Formats: sequence, structure tokens, C-alpha cells
Amino acid sequence: MEEKDQKQLLKERDKLSLKLGYLQRVMKDYNVPVMILFEGVHASGKGRLANELLISLDPRYTKFYATHTPTEVERRKPFLWQYFTHTPSHQEFTIFYRSWYSLYSAIKNNPALYDAYEDPEVLLEEMKSFEKTLVDDGTELLKFYVHIDEDKQKANIQRMYDNPRTMWKAQEYDRDNDASYKKEMDALLAKEEDSWVHIHYKNRFDTVNEVMSLVVERLEKRVKKEKKRVEEGKENNDGFFDGSFKNILKDHDEEEELSKSAYNEKLDKLQKEVRDIQYTLYEKKIPLILVYEGWDAAGKGGNIKRVVRQLDPTGYEINTTAAPTDLEFKHHYLWRFWRQVPKTGHISIYDRSWYGRVMVERVEGFATNKDVRRAYGEINDFEKSLTNFGAIVIKFFIHISKEEQLKRFEARQEDEDKVWKITDEDWRNREKWSAYEEAINDMLDKTSTEYAPWTVINGNNKRFARIEALETIIKVCTERFFDKRFTDS
Amino acid sequence: MEEKDQKQLLKERDKLSLKLGYLQRVMKDYNVPVMILFEGVHASGKGRLANELLISLDPRYTKFYATHTPTEVERRKPFLWQYFTHTPSHQEFTIFYRSWYSLYSAIKNNPALYDAYEDPEVLLEEMKSFEKTLVDDGTELLKFYVHIDEDKQKANIQRMYDNPRTMWKAQEYDRDNDASYKKEMDALLAKEEDSWVHIHYKNRFDTVNEVMSLVVERLEKRVKKEKKRVEEGKENNDGFFDGSFKNILKDHDEEEELSKSAYNEKLDKLQKEVRDIQYTLYEKKIPLILVYEGWDAAGKGGNIKRVVRQLDPTGYEINTTAAPTDLEFKHHYLWRFWRQVPKTGHISIYDRSWYGRVMVERVEGFATNKDVRRAYGEINDFEKSLTNFGAIVIKFFIHISKEEQLKRFEARQEDEDKVWKITDEDWRNREKWSAYEEAINDMLDKTSTEYAPWTVINGNNKRFARIEALETIIKVCTERFFDKRFTDS
Repeated sequence: MEEKDQKQLLKERDKLSLKLGYLQRVMKDYNVPVMILFEGVHASGKGRLANELLISLDPRYTKFYATHTPTEVERRKPFLWQYFTHTPSHQEFTIFYRSWYSLYSAIKNNPALYDAYEDPEVLLEEMKSFEKTLVDDGTELLKFYVHIDEDKQKANIQRMYDNPRTMWKAQEYDRDNDASYKKEMDALLAKEEDSWVHIHYKNRFDTVNEVMSLVVERLEKRVKKEKKRVEEGKENNDGFFDGSFKNILKDHDEEEELSKSAYNEKLDKLQKEVRDIQYTLYEKKIPLILVYEGWDAAGKGGNIKRVVRQLDPTGYEINTTAAPTDLEFKHHYLWRFWRQVPKTGHISIYDRSWYGRVMVERVEGFATNKDVRRAYGEINDFEKSLTNFGAIVIKFFIHISKEEQLKRFEARQEDEDKVWKITDEDWRNREKWSAYEEAINDMLDKTSTEYAPWTVINGNNKRFARIEALETIIKVCTERFFDKRFTDS
Repeated sequence: MEEKDQKQLLKERDKLSLKLGYLQRVMKDYNVPVMILFEGVHASGKGRLANELLISLDPRYTKFYATHTPTEVERRKPFLWQYFTHTPSHQEFTIFYRSWYSLYSAIKNNPALYDAYEDPEVLLEEMKSFEKTLVDDGTELLKFYVHIDEDKQKANIQRMYDNPRTMWKAQEYDRDNDASYKKEMDALLAKEEDSWVHIHYKNRFDTVNEVMSLVVERLEKRVKKEKKRVEEGKENNDGFFDGSFKNILKDHDEEEELSKSAYNEKLDKLQKEVRDIQYTLYEKKIPLILVYEGWDAAGKGGNIKRVVRQLDPTGYEINTTAAPTDLEFKHHYLWRFWRQVPKTGHISIYDRSWYGRVMVERVEGFATNKDVRRAYGEINDFEKSLTNFGAIVIKFFIHISKEEQLKRFEARQEDEDKVWKITDEDWRNREKWSAYEEAINDMLDKTSTEYAPWTVINGNNKRFARIEALETIIKVCTERFFDKRFTDS
């Protein structure tokens, strides 16, 4: 290339860089998260492209995430974990250098890499849902695939060999892996043609500018769309929750009393069994997820306490879900829960959970009806990712009657040791009982899946509720330990 | 034990549990972070004690952290990394099951576990500073050491063997390690006698109550202290910054001009050298930390851009330090920086850094003079932990004259592409030039250590400043690559 052309290209790059900086500030004002990923064969130049783009952006609002050989911690978490937890906030850009596509292809090529997945094909569905979940939430997703001519690729690799400092990097290059990656990607690209942007690497001057122009173009389009959206004003919160719902939450039959001593004896026995279950989970490397939802004062906290009483504290965690922190609020609502996913062999207990999206956020209008409608599928996808990975997901809804709740509220108010537990908010929520009833029924209906069903527990009698939770955990886990699909492998 | 006694003890435990719950809420109101650690030999009952304490506390504000065999990611970070990043926020309790003491003892017993530490003894100093840093910041630290009779320990281990579900756990028990752990701890306990609470494990009824009473006692004492502090009103922000300081920041001599073409040529050459340096850092597993501080408009961002221009983006990260998030604000100010510590072989660049504590926080009064006075030592300890681990720490202060700053502010205001860079805050900061001058001089004086010295760069000429930064990085790293202390090992 002529030196004059180079100078011209560098000048253009500076202009593109300024434009990008401007567009990033605008996107930030519109709260749009941006994800840009680079895939391509070894030594295709994608590293240089990614870095040039990276340094054109404002480092305060730009993150970079490189896919690598999974670490032992990553291998103990579901496939999507590292990616979901690294999605940008509503004011950030994240550049992914190699992505879930590379990882998927590596696993397909060598299933031992992530031995939880007997059939890596299930990951394709997860990847699709993952992208959809984020795009639906407002993320701008740009996927670059970098092509390079074979002789140019060879020359690039040779250059790495020739430099004593980079020789080790060239030595890492594995021709076989690269070939199978290329084959896998060709198939995927053919299937998802529309969603990818193809780049043919020419040289470090032209191609960098090409990528930057394409990013500018895409962002300008998005800015236009956002402008229009703001001009058109707030969308109507369209109907959907019309009061018709399947009534799953029925009143409980009265149960007979369980004497304190019989209860204590049973409790102790079951708690010891659950402790043994914990050891087996650990041995078999199965993560267990226990979700607790229920009315205020239903007894979730006390129930959880009974479950963990005899557990080994190094293997379980109780996650209580309160209002999100400012950082959590700037991400997709599932982001914080992805961050809490247990590793293999561990138990994560949720005192309230991601179901807040379809309960409190729906009833209080923190989420639009559209958001809520979408959430059922997103939650099912999330739990599918967990169970694909081998997790056991048990979900309890502890149901008490409206009268029982009143009794408990009043008792709390009169007990100086418990009065701190009852707040004005509890009374306000109680006034919305029927709206919650509708939301809960919808939730039970739409998110009770074969792989993660709900168990509705009668909470009117706390002793029964605790015994039932323990028995359910023991039953579900034991069935799994003897499930042929898992033991035969 | 008589069953009657057991019942009595369980009743007492319930009372203690209520007291603990109450005290935790009070501590939360006083913003006191609480750290409770359990050390003790294998099968000493510390797991049960820790779990009973854990379930007496409110799970919303209680975390549990277990020391384990370090993962590969942990081994690529300094020793204290996993502990500092798991310290409680100002409204939380964290229970540490085994702690930095166990990890230290394991490394001493098997140095290959964490091969960055040729001499694990340096960790003792770090542990001491770590505890001091947190206690000075207001943390309540309770260290339990659990003793058990040898025959009881044997019986406990035998019970584990006898249960097929826990057999693997007993098999993990390594008599040799346990003996060397005990020996190491005995020596440490003798040295730090005052700071430990000794527990002799009798049985799961008496001993749990004993631990809970001791925690209650300690928290009651602290609550009293906090009450008194509040009654006495705000402390005076006592003098210290009296205008006398070593004048390190001198005016720069005028430097001759560097032509654009000579600059570009030099830049390109140095950038390529830094890229080679990056590969060598990676190969030798050395983390590099680059700190950039300087006046507003000194050219930090542009300088950083020139450093990373030709780097491999998978191996560096730029951390820009803005106002803390709400979660960061609730921790020790070094917490967020510990979370950003690079792993071995990687480069972390800080555009502003932990030095905010002794600059903006000092000048604006966000920290008291007492906090600031303490901060110099804490920062030196932090950087010592990094260099003990083998990190290279390079700190740049980019110095421009007051006149040069004005010129740049005005230029920014007139350039439509740069006007967003200049805010009212910049002008307000400028009015405090002399207060900053004092703070900067103090900083340079008190935190320029042998292991992490400051380099003051003349920023009046941006081209020179960039060349100087690049040359400094190359010089310091190259010296290190050929340093006998590191190459001979």
C-alpha cells in the first residue's frame, strides 16, 4: 500500500473514532447496552480489529471479555454463566473476543472440556435464547465474523513463529482445532446468515476502518430508532392481565395437628437425611437450587432455617432477594441471579428469587406488561440452562390463607422480638391480595415445567410446611440419584 | 448428657439467637461490618459451630466464606485477594470458615501451592496489615480457635468413616497436614494471644451456646462503644495538613519540540517493544500494574491509549476510577481495587486509582484527616502485597503547569468534539489548585516506596509525556526480566 493511502486511511480512522465516541455518549443517554463480538479463525486479525475498536471507545464505559479455555470454576457453572455475568450494563459496551460460539465449538470438538453436557447440541438453543433475551431487553448486538485468505493466515502465523517473543503463541495454534472450528462456524453462519456481519481481512488499515464504519452505521441506525421512540412518547401498557387465570392456588383442607414432640423427632430425622443428601450431591457434583416464594409471613425464612440446620455450611448459600443494587438495576433482571448460580455439588437457596419479576414487579408496575409477558419464557429458558447443566431445581410456593396472614401480622405486632419483622409495606401488599393472587396463579401456570415444576406447600401449619419441604427435597434428590439417565453414563 | 439438660440448653440457645438477631440489627444501624472466623484442627466441630451461628443470623446480611484448596484463578492472584474481596460491607456479617491462617499454614507446608511466594513468611506481615486495615476502618473482628481432645477428634473422624455418605470426607483427612497445621497455629496463637478467643469443644449443646454467648458479649460491648461515640458527637477533624510539605512537584524546564514525524516513528517503535514486553510478562507470569494520576487535562487518557495501541487486548484492562457504586461505597475504599487486581501475566491500567483517597477525598473532605493519614500506610501495604506476589507496579503522575491546564480547558471548550470533556467540576477543581498541590506532594512523599516508586512525568508536552511513559515501562520491565533475584529461582 502506498504511504499516502495509509495516511489518508489513518485520517479517516480518526474521524470514525470521533464519531464512535459521540455515538457512545448518545447510546449511554438512551440506556442502550451494546455487545459486539468477534469470531474468526486463528490469526485472522480479529485481535487487532477488536483492539482498535476498543481504544476508540471510552474506557469508562467499555469492557472487554475474551473467551479462553474454561477454568475449573467455569466448568463447575453452566455454559452461559460466564457470558451472562459479563453482559454490559445499560450504559456500557462490551466487546467479546471469541464468544459462546467459540466455546460451543470447542466443546463439540472435545466434550470432555465441559463434561456436564452429554449432548452439546442443547447449547445451540441456549445461545439463541440468550441472544434473544438480551436483544428483547434492548441490547444492540453486533456479531462480526472475520474471514482471511489461507495464504495470509499462514503468513501471519509464520510471523509469530519468527518472533522469539511470540513463538509460544504460534505454537499454541492447533491446525485441527482451527479446521473443526471453521467447519462448525460455516454451518452456523449458513443457518443464521442475517444476524452476522462478514469481514474479509485485507490489511490493518482498510479493515480496521471497515469495521469501525460498520459499527458507526449500526449505532446511527439505533440512535434514530431511539429518537423516534422518545418522540412517540411512552408506549401504552397494553392489556394482558384481564383477571382471567387458572385458579391453581386453592384453599387448603384443614390438617390435623402435629404434636411438638412428634414434629421434633421427624424434623431431626429428615434434617439428617438432607445432610446425607448434601454429601451425595457433592460426591456426584450435582448443583441443587431451592427457590422459596410465598406470601408475606408465609414462613419462608423459618422453613429455610430448618432445611439448613444440619448442613455443612461450606456447601450451601442462602440468597435473599431484596431491592436490586444500582449496578444490578442497570442490567437485565436475570443478571444478578446468574451471578448467584451455585457451582457443581453446592446448594443455593433463594428466599424470594427471579420470580419477583412476575410478582411484585408486575403488581407494582415496575415492569411493563410486555416485560412481564416476556419474563415467563425467559425464566423457563434460565431454568432450562440450569437443568441442562445437570442442576436439580426445586421451587416451593408457600401458600397461606388471607386470614392466617392477618393472624400472623397481628401476632408479630404484639411480640417485641418480632415487631421489626412487620412493616407498612407488608400491610400495603396485603391490600393488593387479589392482584397478587392473579399474578401467582399466572406464574404457577406458566413456569411449572417438566424440568422445574412448582410445589405448592400448605403454609397454614408451619410444622407441616417444614416437614413437607424437607420430604420433597429428599424425594426429588433421591429420585435423581437413581435416575437411569444420569447413573448410566 | 441428660435429656433435661439438653432441653434447657436448647431453650437458652433460642434466647441467645434472639439476642444475636437484635444485635445484628443494631450493628447494621451503626454501619459496623463484622468478621467472625473459625480456625481449628480437622473434625474439631468448628463446622457445626459456624453453621449454628450462621443460622442464628439474618441471611439478608450474613455471608459465609470457606477457605478451600486454592483454584487456578486464585493462585493467579495475590494471597489476600480472595479475603479482601470477601470482606463484609458496612451492614453485613461475614463468617470465615478457616481463613487466611489456614491458607498461610497450607502454603508454608507446601510452597508449591502458591508458587509466587518464595518465602511464605512475608504473608504474616500481610495478614497483620490486612486485619489492622479493616479494624481501623471500623470492622469488628472475632477470631475463634476451636480446640478438641485427641480422642474426641478420633471418634469424630471414625463416625465420618462409618457413614458411607461421608466416607470420602474422612478420607480427605490428612494426618500430616493436620499436625503441621496445629504446630503452625500453636506458634501463631502464642504470639497473638490477645487477639484470639479459645474454645474447647465439649459437645454440640454446650459449645454452641458458649460461642453464641461470646459473640453476644462482644457485640454488646461494641454497641455500647458506638452509642457513646454517637452521644459524644462528631469528632473534630484534627489538624495535620498545615501547609508544610516537601515540594516534590517542581516546575518543568522547557523542553525542545519533537517533530510530528520523529514522534510518530519513535512511538511506533516503542509501542511494538511494549507489545513484546506484554508477551514476556505473559510467558513469565508477571502481572503489571500501571497507575496514572495527574491534574485534570494532563493527558492521562491519551497517554494510556498510546500504551495499549499495539497490545493484545486479551491481556490488558483499563480501569477508570469514577465515583464508587453503592456497594463499593459500603466497603473499605481498597475493596474495589482488590477486585480489579490483574491475574498473573496480565496488565491492569488505572486511569485514576486508589490514590483518590489521598487526593480528591482529602481535598473535598470526603475522608477525615484521620482516614487520610492512615491511608498512606494502607496503600503502601496494598502495593507491598502486590509486589510480594511478584507484580510490577509503575505509578505515573503527569504534571502540567497551571497555565497549561488553562490553555487546555479553553481549547476543549472551543472544540465541538471535545467540549463534553470539560465540566463545571473541572473548573471548581482548578480553583483548589493549591490544596491539590499540597495533597499531591504529600502523596508523592509518603507513597514513593522502593518497591513501588512514583515517576513524575512532564505533561506540558504531550508527545514527550507519551514517549516517557512508554520508555519507563520498557525500562522497568526489562530490568525486572533480567533481575537475578527473579531469574535465578
